[in-house]
Amino acid sequence: MVDIPGTRSLLSEDFAAPITDRFFEDYRAGSSYAYGYLPVSLEEIVEFARRYDPQPLHTDPDYAERGPFGGIIASGWLTSSLCMRLFADHFLSRNASLSSPGIDELRWPAPVRPGDVLHVRIDVLETRSSRTKPDRGLVRTHLEGVNQDGRTVLDFHAVNFLSRRHPG
Amino acid sequence: MVDIPGTRSLLSEDFAAPITDRFFEDYRAGSSYAYGYLPVSLEEIVEFARRYDPQPLHTDPDYAERGPFGGIIASGWLTSSLCMRLFADHFLSRNASLSSPGIDELRWPAPVRPGDVLHVRIDVLETRSSRTKPDRGLVRTHLEGVNQDGRTVLDFHAVNFLSRRHPG
Repeated sequence: MVDIPGTRSLLSEDFAAPITDRFFEDYRAGSSYAYGYLPVSLEEIVEFARRYDPQPLHTDPDYAERGPFGGIIASGWLTSSLCMRLFADHFLSRNASLSSPGIDELRWPAPVRPGDVLHVRIDVLETRSSRTKPDRGLVRTHLEGVNQDGRTVLDFHAVNFLSRRHPG
Repeated sequence: MVDIPGTRSLLSEDFAAPITDRFFEDYRAGSSYAYGYLPVSLEEIVEFARRYDPQPLHTDPDYAERGPFGGIIASGWLTSSLCMRLFADHFLSRNASLSSPGIDELRWPAPVRPGDVLHVRIDVLETRSSRTKPDRGLVRTHLEGVNQDGRTVLDFHAVNFLSRRHPG
């Protein structure tokens, strides 16, 4: 079992409310957050891939050495999951997150390699009350996963539904 | 460590070439494949979420019981990763898969719960040679993850680059 270490918390001034008491109203369009970090090990790349994406590019260092990336790289689903960890640890409310209908324009513009250290940049693009359910609102974000050299390794747009502190 | 059992193989008549000798040219637009299955356990839902998506909806059965889904549900990233396993085990070439630039319109239209058994439906939407690299082609697919009741739990469009058997 690979152990994922803690990641740097957002500072208390980053949000009006702590993550355990954070509602729809605490997200503001135009806000940006950048934080991390999360190291990626060879062990975790191989373990994840053996379970979920057993392509030799992700499981076999020797095969990968001769391949298009000149070495083993993480499954894009691991990259996504690692950045989800950063998203859930510090940004997404722990008390008011209801669900996510999905993700748009999920891209892996550069590979993640063993030893990389990832952080995230999150922009809040839009917040609006639900048209049909007065107890919740929608938060639309742009997330980038970035490695230690400043290269973007993940890029997507997400929608999350969150409970309102004060149902409309 | 959760052990993922094998999934039903595509039959030999499903593809012109076995998965270990399958190139770009072996994918045909208009082809459809449906196969599985992959069971999902409570243990795997919780283990994955503790590492990658530690929202109580995915980690705490008691909390989830009182939540919007009336019980614990899988992280959408686990649902995606499980279906990737089915995609990689039987559809995606084991010798010619180069990379994927990303995914579009990733949706989780219904939750995955402990005890669910998933299968996939894959449609090949488009195949075309790379405009810039004569050694490869692009395969665009639509994938649906489906549970034992026939409900779609995952839906996305993917692009994969594959080596050509006969470089153009």
